[in-house]
Amino acid sequence: MSAEVCTLSVEPLTRSTFAPFGDVIQASDAATAYAINAGTTQRFHDLATIDTTRDGGRTILSLFRAQPRTLPFVVRLLERHPLGSQAFMPLSPHPYLVVVATAPSATPRAFLAREGQGVNYHAGTWHHPLLALDAVSDFLVIDRAGPGDNCDEVELPQYYSLSLAM
Amino acid sequence: MSAEVCTLSVEPLTRSTFAPFGDVIQASDAATAYAINAGTTQRFHDLATIDTTRDGGRTILSLFRAQPRTLPFVVRLLERHPLGSQAFMPLSPHPYLVVVATAPSATPRAFLAREGQGVNYHAGTWHHPLLALDAVSDFLVIDRAGPGDNCDEVELPQYYSLSLAM
Repeated sequence: MSAEVCTLSVEPLTRSTFAPFGDVIQASDAATAYAINAGTTQRFHDLATIDTTRDGGRTILSLFRAQPRTLPFVVRLLERHPLGSQAFMPLSPHPYLVVVATAPSATPRAFLAREGQGVNYHAGTWHHPLLALDAVSDFLVIDRAGPGDNCDEVELPQYYSLSLAM
Repeated sequence: MSAEVCTLSVEPLTRSTFAPFGDVIQASDAATAYAINAGTTQRFHDLATIDTTRDGGRTILSLFRAQPRTLPFVVRLLERHPLGSQAFMPLSPHPYLVVVATAPSATPRAFLAREGQGVNYHAGTWHHPLLALDAVSDFLVIDRAGPGDNCDEVELPQYYSLSLAM
């Protein structure tokens, strides 16, 4: 509880900057796109690595309805799902914050996800629970159900303050 | 090309009316909901039967960007994916039409999906390709990739006209 609070800068969310932690789910990558349904629909194909079947797991779909956080927000904990990936696709037109780290002892990185950008955490990626902004926000979540303990949570040795005063 | 065109009535989309064909993905089913993330998020849990791993398949995420259709629209064909389920979650605040049938020879049923309602076609469900309305509409699609022929398409012996003149 006595940890010093440092300020964490917020980066734009891009496929390349987020690659060490997972996938960015968005329609802008033309390399994956092709027309279907007699040309009436463009398919942006296979945008995330869904890893949900190890150790008897299965893919499930859920909806998360998140209350917005107030800024500055203090990051005090992270969690990870060692047995499977977890994807979040925003269903509401609001930005949200994504905080990830390579380890609880490492300095986290914070990304601002814009409207239309989803993220898929790879199995084992340390991340903060949902940080909705501006308004109550719904997300479609694609993750794993199955046997085993699939959630670790740790309090950080160092707290970090997040704001958007850019 | 000489098939007679009949009018198909459009029903509201509900879990019970759609059950023979698949799942409705929506946040209104309190039976599945519980609080997570220290009470900041409500999780509506496991809303669809994702069936994507048979015959060496895997779950993939894609985005579909659909051009809107003009009404009245004539339904001339249906398709099915015999090897896996296919879920559509709207990312845009527009309604869309869902047309399904128990067989190509059966009278189809048409449903109006409202904003916030997704559908998950069970494996083998005959359905029409995306019928966006009003504006270009994005959908997150959760379906199967893998070996085997996973798309059958048939022209219907009877065409059906769809409109929203209710």
